Amino acid sequence: MIREKISAFLTEDVFTGDLSTDLVFAENEEGIGQFLAKSDGIIAGLEIGQVVYDELAPGTATFTPFVNDGDKVTKGTVVATATGRVRTLLSAERVILNLMQRMSAIATATHNHVEALNDPTIRIVDTRKTLPGLRIFDKKAVKIGGGANHRFGLYDGVMLKDNHIAYAGGIKPAVEKVREGLGHMVKIEVEIESREQLLEAIDANADVIMFDNRTPEEVREFVALTPAHIITEISGGINLDNIANYAGTGAKYISIGSITNAPTLFDISYNSSFAKLK
Amino acid sequence: MIREKISAFLTEDVFTGDLSTDLVFAENEEGIGQFLAKSDGIIAGLEIGQVVYDELAPGTATFTPFVNDGDKVTKGTVVATATGRVRTLLSAERVILNLMQRMSAIATATHNHVEALNDPTIRIVDTRKTLPGLRIFDKKAVKIGGGANHRFGLYDGVMLKDNHIAYAGGIKPAVEKVREGLGHMVKIEVEIESREQLLEAIDANADVIMFDNRTPEEVREFVALTPAHIITEISGGINLDNIANYAGTGAKYISIGSITNAPTLFDISYNSSFAKLK
Amino acid sequence: MIREKISAFLTEDVFTGDLSTDLVFAENEEGIGQFLAKSDGIIAGLEIGQVVYDELAPGTATFTPFVNDGDKVTKGTVVATATGRVRTLLSAERVILNLMQRMSAIATATHNHVEALNDPTIRIVDTRKTLPGLRIFDKKAVKIGGGANHRFGLYDGVMLKDNHIAYAGGIKPAVEKVREGLGHMVKIEVEIESREQLLEAIDANADVIMFDNRTPEEVREFVALTPAHIITEISGGINLDNIANYAGTGAKYISIGSITNAPTLFDISYNSSFAKLK
Amino acid sequence: MIREKISAFLTEDVFTGDLSTDLVFAENEEGIGQFLAKSDGIIAGLEIGQVVYDELAPGTATFTPFVNDGDKVTKGTVVATATGRVRTLLSAERVILNLMQRMSAIATATHNHVEALNDPTIRIVDTRKTLPGLRIFDKKAVKIGGGANHRFGLYDGVMLKDNHIAYAGGIKPAVEKVREGLGHMVKIEVEIESREQLLEAIDANADVIMFDNRTPEEVREFVALTPAHIITEISGGINLDNIANYAGTGAKYISIGSITNAPTLFDISYNSSFAKLK
Amino acid sequence: MIREKISAFLTEDVFTGDLSTDLVFAENEEGIGQFLAKSDGIIAGLEIGQVVYDELAPGTATFTPFVNDGDKVTKGTVVATATGRVRTLLSAERVILNLMQRMSAIATATHNHVEALNDPTIRIVDTRKTLPGLRIFDKKAVKIGGGANHRFGLYDGVMLKDNHIAYAGGIKPAVEKVREGLGHMVKIEVEIESREQLLEAIDANADVIMFDNRTPEEVREFVALTPAHIITEISGGINLDNIANYAGTGAKYISIGSITNAPTLFDISYNSSFAKLK
Amino acid sequence: MIREKISAFLTEDVFTGDLSTDLVFAENEEGIGQFLAKSDGIIAGLEIGQVVYDELAPGTATFTPFVNDGDKVTKGTVVATATGRVRTLLSAERVILNLMQRMSAIATATHNHVEALNDPTIRIVDTRKTLPGLRIFDKKAVKIGGGANHRFGLYDGVMLKDNHIAYAGGIKPAVEKVREGLGHMVKIEVEIESREQLLEAIDANADVIMFDNRTPEEVREFVALTPAHIITEISGGINLDNIANYAGTGAKYISIGSITNAPTLFDISYNSSFAKLK
Repeated sequence: MIREKISAFLTEDVFTGDLSTDLVFAENEEGIGQFLAKSDGIIAGLEIGQVVYDELAPGTATFTPFVNDGDKVTKGTVVATATGRVRTLLSAERVILNLMQRMSAIATATHNHVEALNDPTIRIVDTRKTLPGLRIFDKKAVKIGGGANHRFGLYDGVMLKDNHIAYAGGIKPAVEKVREGLGHMVKIEVEIESREQLLEAIDANADVIMFDNRTPEEVREFVALTPAHIITEISGGINLDNIANYAGTGAKYISIGSITNAPTLFDISYNSSFAKLK
Repeated sequence: MIREKISAFLTEDVFTGDLSTDLVFAENEEGIGQFLAKSDGIIAGLEIGQVVYDELAPGTATFTPFVNDGDKVTKGTVVATATGRVRTLLSAERVILNLMQRMSAIATATHNHVEALNDPTIRIVDTRKTLPGLRIFDKKAVKIGGGANHRFGLYDGVMLKDNHIAYAGGIKPAVEKVREGLGHMVKIEVEIESREQLLEAIDANADVIMFDNRTPEEVREFVALTPAHIITEISGGINLDNIANYAGTGAKYISIGSITNAPTLFDISYNSSFAKLK
Repeated sequence: MIREKISAFLTEDVFTGDLSTDLVFAENEEGIGQFLAKSDGIIAGLEIGQVVYDELAPGTATFTPFVNDGDKVTKGTVVATATGRVRTLLSAERVILNLMQRMSAIATATHNHVEALNDPTIRIVDTRKTLPGLRIFDKKAVKIGGGANHRFGLYDGVMLKDNHIAYAGGIKPAVEKVREGLGHMVKIEVEIESREQLLEAIDANADVIMFDNRTPEEVREFVALTPAHIITEISGGINLDNIANYAGTGAKYISIGSITNAPTLFDISYNSSFAKLK
Repeated sequence: MIREKISAFLTEDVFTGDLSTDLVFAENEEGIGQFLAKSDGIIAGLEIGQVVYDELAPGTATFTPFVNDGDKVTKGTVVATATGRVRTLLSAERVILNLMQRMSAIATATHNHVEALNDPTIRIVDTRKTLPGLRIFDKKAVKIGGGANHRFGLYDGVMLKDNHIAYAGGIKPAVEKVREGLGHMVKIEVEIESREQLLEAIDANADVIMFDNRTPEEVREFVALTPAHIITEISGGINLDNIANYAGTGAKYISIGSITNAPTLFDISYNSSFAKLK
Repeated sequence: MIREKISAFLTEDVFTGDLSTDLVFAENEEGIGQFLAKSDGIIAGLEIGQVVYDELAPGTATFTPFVNDGDKVTKGTVVATATGRVRTLLSAERVILNLMQRMSAIATATHNHVEALNDPTIRIVDTRKTLPGLRIFDKKAVKIGGGANHRFGLYDGVMLKDNHIAYAGGIKPAVEKVREGLGHMVKIEVEIESREQLLEAIDANADVIMFDNRTPEEVREFVALTPAHIITEISGGINLDNIANYAGTGAKYISIGSITNAPTLFDISYNSSFAKLK
Repeated sequence: MIREKISAFLTEDVFTGDLSTDLVFAENEEGIGQFLAKSDGIIAGLEIGQVVYDELAPGTATFTPFVNDGDKVTKGTVVATATGRVRTLLSAERVILNLMQRMSAIATATHNHVEALNDPTIRIVDTRKTLPGLRIFDKKAVKIGGGANHRFGLYDGVMLKDNHIAYAGGIKPAVEKVREGLGHMVKIEVEIESREQLLEAIDANADVIMFDNRTPEEVREFVALTPAHIITEISGGINLDNIANYAGTGAKYISIGSITNAPTLFDISYNSSFAKLK
């Protein structure tokens, strides 16, 4: 699946051919290059490199990581080297960089929230606020950054929000209606905003209850009310500045849209040289 | 092409079905909803809405824009309303938001650079630093934001950088080699960093010359040396803080990676209600 | 997604054209036809008919169901009529029949198990023993027949079997290893065969525990040992002859491979006539 | 084409990943396994095994058949072993089993009819009553079981049934109309039910004549009337119980829907172990 | 299938957009145009026009044929008019022309051979010498031009040539080997070059015998030797200049590669105007 | 991209299998064969051979060119040999021949025009008059024949013709309108027919000006009026008979539709033998 996507990404950028490189470089010219971090943070997406080369021109170039996905790197770190046919190296460069930068940005944002929270009993999870077509990469980057994944899409988990609840006539009828039609392997999460709703969700035996936009104090109170076998999640308005306030509240998960939605650019550059010059 | 991509984006999010919505809402339940800007900036991607509804469930929902692509909106502006089948409205919500937020963020970043530059004789253009699979949307957003598009990929324009030049043995041989093999409808751009390189590029009769990482003074000097029929472009290290310094330098284009690479989140929300409640 | 699959099914059967029908019937000849049950059981797949016509030749034929998915029909029941262009009706016939027969066979098998069990507190669920490429139809048919769906594939639910457990060094380490890397929205099911394993699975707080190949007495005993918030499932060697023995055991689910793996043929025929004859 | 289909089957089952196996087993863990027949009959689909492994993870696992397609096996026979990466072996298991069971069931059903008929001058052939998307596998299994294939679809052979004949105004006009528009490499088969129709079909010089729902005596009579260069086929209501009655009737082919439509389950299991345990 | 192909053809030509037309014409500008024959011959492919418009931009333009496929037209004949959105009309123009010219060229070449032969008992058929990806259009054009179609590909008809025969050890063993493994609905054609081979092919009861590179006299002799139920075909070195010599030889088919392989250009032009000008 | 297209071409011809070859030849039978030019001209498409073999059955056959793309060959020249599995060699034959013949025909037509023109300062270029789906091969063949490529499609170059100009109200407004919305890397070509239009196009600073249907004298005059940095192109009614008249006119390019639209057949044959015979 990742191979198919990367093949499509190459088609988008290269399509009928890299005019500049194909017209300048002889077909068999060999070269080397290196990928350098230009930002501090968590590197992610290193396994992409070889896949891109193999999809573009199988067997013509090798991507050798110098660090591992999830490693903390600093500006200037050589994260990988590349060797092989110059045409492959140059034509593949931008797809690798665009994707690896995206993944490293997300991994770094995730990691920063984990560090700021500083409570190993609470895990950071992502949301569906990923970029269309890139969810599999975005979600992978969250894991590399030390977070966990929420549901992948609308198809593999239930999340009952205000609309669903209002239409069904309450949390309990909503959960029951869904459970009736749902396989027993799918979890049901309910979004609540008050103590009353919480009690209703507990009564409905939701698998996961999400406390939406609650203060740390409310979270603590709500957690205390929730039976141990029900998973608790916090969400809404939590960012690097205030996440530490939620440490020690006893919730199990904090979901944060901004780690995929608004991560800070993680810059990576590629420098190459080729055999003829040496 | 846009329809195919959006169909794939829906498959990514909805796949075998929206468990939550399909199990709660009756198939023919009708509802309404509205899309609200939660940020200030330039709205973009409004034409996406109807396409998403039509790809998900043709003829079941209508997206009605209240503003136009490129309009300046402020936090709280209702940018569009949606009416139709609740299942369609809810299952399509996230794909529309994710894509419209991305496009609006890019349009806004572009617009901000245009305003900061404040020189209508110089146009802001994008780069190939777009997210894989989203280039067609990213480039469209740049135009909506008041910028213009650089080449779409490696296939429709030539850009000779240091590697190409070194391998060919200089700018002139590089340009000649490329021109020899290239159709006459493709432009050749040369990246230069010094006065010597500039003169060589002029001598080679490049169609476009890009001054890489030059000060405003150097740009002015280089522009003066360049014949009128050769297009000049500036690039490298230009951001919102220093772009105004390049006003009046006489260059024709400034290309900026960050408008697609690192735009600030433009937040949009969707609120819905449905017939039964009224 | 269903439309794409049906389009592929039509390509398989019709491809470059229905030689017999296209050469005999004038393009605009209109006709009618009816679909008759030739077996007793539960009809399923009625919504397929119109989709097949629309994929083959949009707007040329209408499929009108006379019964509903899930209805009990007997040999001779007219389940639907078809009207429109004769070419469409005849070229689409076999795809509709092949798919509707498959779905009705599965729905009937499911229903027969539900009836034989005769315990509404236990639900019949399917397995991954479906035919490649047809899972979405097979699983839908199980629901129409009164059953529920187990996980859709390897991607949306965890099932720890003997191999996983042996490799991890026990049920508890296996569950912990998985939970560590898994999102909190995915359920973990553990397959056990003994009381010791059951206790270990309970201790590991598995979401679902499957009692594999156990007698009704063992099931009763195991259910009694399992906390209420853990879901219990029975599997292995259960068929129409012995399923009634599991009524009243207190388990929540029985998964049965044969309902998708070896359902008895449900025969449906199509008879048509056309305008010219009348 | 087979590779493409198997790739789609894997996507259906594995999609974004095998959560259970990927989280438990180290990436390079090696293991072995064996495929065991759990039924008596004809094994088919052995060449599928390696293709599934190669599509899932090229070069990581080897499927070694111990018997050949078409061999008679009994419950307990090891039909193949598998060695290689445990992740590949476990994630591919269900697709291999589902497909090999289907093919073996069809091969066995075909073989059983061949044996029951016990007349080597008459061949068993299939129909278009195959499962959508699986025709290429179903038809291959029929050949492995000792049968032959009827046309693959509506595109590669003509079959004139009552509707076509009625519309054209008789068998002769129907055949002539079709022959006029048809290439000379496509055979025309006519379905007949009476002596009068038979004579008309002979007069029309059909390539193949199918005697629909005729008694052995009628078949004998009809065969005697048919010139040697016209192929004769019997169909309708023939099953394992009565097929022997058609031995010696002189017809060339018997087509039987149930061999693909309602074959009895052929069960195969997969047992694996892995290096760590040894 | 035709729709899918035309969609791909449009992607090839238009891809991310028709820069010239989209930037000049307002989106809703309406216009008219006409398709003119610039050659004499048989027009073919008229049904392509509307399909192209519908694939490019559904509901925006109408293609109205003024003649029928297969009609003889002369230079200057208006074969169709087009009305609707100017953008659609102009962007679709080249795909329509390229395809309609190809089909008309083939139809004309076919027709010319039919006329030159002037023997209605012998039909002109095509070969597999079509352009890759266009076979379905090429074969359709042959029929429009008054010819018939040979097999569509290697999958729907058997053709035994010298290699097959040599390997099998003669015509009879080759035919028997093939018939053994082949369904009874597929015809077997044998290519022969001598009287001895002819007799062997007759003895093997081939369905079709092709006389390769034979003089009219030899054809006459060979036809006389062939039983009535075996179809005869001539091929090799037959062209417009010598085809008349084969009239009256009694063969049933002449296959001619050049009608698809080397048809003379049939030129068609498109002229348009638009509402604003009127 | 070429691999995908060739895979589709093979599906078109082979689809479910080469009945003739698969039933006659043992799977591992090895053979050799040779490709012979049957015409005089420029050979093109040699790199296709290996790709076809690899797409059909990876690793089973080798295509060894004896000449290079662009070489002048004469009737009888062995252009390549093929060795490997007989099934692969025979089943791939027609796709290779059909494509290589097409490319060689185009290369030869291009070369003939280059020779007839006999002016190295003017290059022959192609048009969009290529066959649907084959543009990438057609354009490549033009280059092999000594020509250059015009734009690939409507997406990578602007061409303003009479319609665009009339609608915009003149050449200058048309160019300005387009330039406003266009990236600076895309060239704008204007088609002109008179001295007045030429001056207007020069005034508009078009990148390329095409003199449509002009006499050699007019071309000379127009070239003299055009500034050096604007590229000049001639088109319309130029063929092998009159192209020499345009030598020395000073234009830079001549575009000729017939090199892709109506190239003369370049015949290539394939002869094979196989191991068993030796």
